[in-house]
Amino acid sequence: MSERVSPPRGFPKEEYQARVMRAQALMGRAGLAALLLTSEAEVRYFTGYLTRFWESPTRPWFVVVPASGDPVAVIPAIGAHLMHQSWLRDIRTFAAPAPGDAGLALLGDTLEELTPPGSRIGVPSGPETYLRLPLADWARLRERVARVLVDDANIVAVLRRVKSGAEVARITQACAIAGRAFARLPEIARAGVPLDEVFRRFQMLCLEEGADWVPYLAGAAGPGGYGDVISPATRVPLAAGDVLMLDTGLVYDGYFCDFDRNFSLGPPAPEVARAHARLIEATRAGFAAARPGARHGDLYRAMADVLGTQPEGRLGHGLGMQLTEGPSIVAWEEAPLVPGMVLTLEPCIDVAPGRMLVHEENIAITETGAIWLSHPAAAEIQILEAT
Amino acid sequence: MSERVSPPRGFPKEEYQARVMRAQALMGRAGLAALLLTSEAEVRYFTGYLTRFWESPTRPWFVVVPASGDPVAVIPAIGAHLMHQSWLRDIRTFAAPAPGDAGLALLGDTLEELTPPGSRIGVPSGPETYLRLPLADWARLRERVARVLVDDANIVAVLRRVKSGAEVARITQACAIAGRAFARLPEIARAGVPLDEVFRRFQMLCLEEGADWVPYLAGAAGPGGYGDVISPATRVPLAAGDVLMLDTGLVYDGYFCDFDRNFSLGPPAPEVARAHARLIEATRAGFAAARPGARHGDLYRAMADVLGTQPEGRLGHGLGMQLTEGPSIVAWEEAPLVPGMVLTLEPCIDVAPGRMLVHEENIAITETGAIWLSHPAAAEIQILEAT
Repeated sequence: MSERVSPPRGFPKEEYQARVMRAQALMGRAGLAALLLTSEAEVRYFTGYLTRFWESPTRPWFVVVPASGDPVAVIPAIGAHLMHQSWLRDIRTFAAPAPGDAGLALLGDTLEELTPPGSRIGVPSGPETYLRLPLADWARLRERVARVLVDDANIVAVLRRVKSGAEVARITQACAIAGRAFARLPEIARAGVPLDEVFRRFQMLCLEEGADWVPYLAGAAGPGGYGDVISPATRVPLAAGDVLMLDTGLVYDGYFCDFDRNFSLGPPAPEVARAHARLIEATRAGFAAARPGARHGDLYRAMADVLGTQPEGRLGHGLGMQLTEGPSIVAWEEAPLVPGMVLTLEPCIDVAPGRMLVHEENIAITETGAIWLSHPAAAEIQILEAT
Repeated sequence: MSERVSPPRGFPKEEYQARVMRAQALMGRAGLAALLLTSEAEVRYFTGYLTRFWESPTRPWFVVVPASGDPVAVIPAIGAHLMHQSWLRDIRTFAAPAPGDAGLALLGDTLEELTPPGSRIGVPSGPETYLRLPLADWARLRERVARVLVDDANIVAVLRRVKSGAEVARITQACAIAGRAFARLPEIARAGVPLDEVFRRFQMLCLEEGADWVPYLAGAAGPGGYGDVISPATRVPLAAGDVLMLDTGLVYDGYFCDFDRNFSLGPPAPEVARAHARLIEATRAGFAAARPGARHGDLYRAMADVLGTQPEGRLGHGLGMQLTEGPSIVAWEEAPLVPGMVLTLEPCIDVAPGRMLVHEENIAITETGAIWLSHPAAAEIQILEAT
């Protein structure tokens, strides 16, 4: 791998302090004495705690953001060494797994210490969130803590929608890495190569070009289009006339890209060429509409107008610490675009029953309009060797 | 990649039917009229539905296992094409994302159709589970459904502990792939190579050797040992005297391996050589104790006796569709070993304050004792080039 200039890893303490201050301002308005966080992205957003160990479901992890002051981590002992490398200073640990409720007891004590009696504690509960804690433990916690656990008034989701410059730099880097991998696809994909081998080799290209890891790769290949966009690879070899689509979410320093590319095995059928050009036109229309103050629904309409249909699914979404984040680009979404938002534009088109094409790019909203984070594809579908 | 014989992908319908029948027998004893499943492993266990699309948190997914008859899927429309390739025949879809509670309404109707009034529906709620549904939606569902939603009496977790032959074959394959990648580590790791480059290249080796994807890689390197085992890679170059540890959970056909290997950069210090040999001896003692009828706690004690300490953390765990599954190998775990269980043996040893070594192998329990799924490491730590 050739050396390239990459943004530094991790953020300065000030990045997290600013996030906490914004959260605390919103907590004050919502009447919340603390936030209780349990999931990977929520914990990392306020602490910078980055590990793939979340893959193990055994142990719960907690971060408490009080109404004033720094967050407090209440975590299994196995995570102490790494959490002490974060900016947090108050890190409380419990043995896990262990018999009994050691972690819940420590969390309960911490919550009661950090909040006044009778106050309310917000837990992310809205769209796209989940509680990373067994339901039985959740019930125990609610019984144990002499505070009212309520929803977080969507505070964490709303904050995460608007990225800092440092966050946009990571996503831009992830996009650049994926772009280089896509540019090398002709090295690994041609007629006769099984789709699962293309998937495997493409992930290797992503890593070779600088991905930290490749949490997401989907795609499909079929004559003149494909049936869905979320399937794992089959062993069917690519064949002349196929349209191959790969959609990757790779990670750089904890931030995702999420875009795809379509390829034709040999010269495309006229309807495929037209469909691809139409998707690019729709994407450009979405890009042009993506200005501060526009609604997410406006982007949907701009793309749907070009497509000439009203797709039932969304035509894009937020992007950042997770492969997909809110809000969705759907007709009914009235949330306004704000500088710092990072979005995917993802129009789709039906070429024939059971044969679709989907295109996707990543953009960021600035004060003056959108900028491309992925290098936008040309109207002409790329052609791979079919012999 | 050379061609190798791999187990076929996916399971026959009979595999899933047997799982459903076992679940239904336990549901009858627990007085449950249905199971409601929301998470990736739970849904896949009963359907075979395999996709990386779970990386997107936007949409909920539901599978209902009734007291008799086949499971019913209640899923977003985007998943219909892939779910129709599973053995399920009753697949109900809703638009998502969408305003309102379309998915919850369809799920509620389905639950009421499949269960008698006044009955109880089990939801996995115990250790290592989570509800993959926003808390606000969970509250809405409980209000809407005229049934009692209770815990699942640990039925799904208990079933998943005992693997079928087809499942063990997948885990064995994942272990073999990782074993080949570890054998090639000298190609990519030597003094002077930054740890993050080793991580990246090792994931490429895993893919080249046949991994479908690499959800987990952790590791560390430090002089004479390392401080923790869950950190992502730093950019610090490997140096003579370092112990390098890589711990990977790669996936083949939806099943994980989870084991590590330690390497010394140049000849190991005597205390490192001794520690490694002790870890191997402890692993072998755990293996020897791993017979049907033994308790998980017996394995802990067998390993702890060799280590000469009583580590606070666990010394292994279940393994399968997830990187880590229950039960844990801890002193207080009385669950008996049963043929078909797949476990990791994972002893650790402190070489000095802040310097540890961890070793890990994967085994399966058979009628007559344990078998190795990973090819067990030798007592001598492997040596990498230090110049």
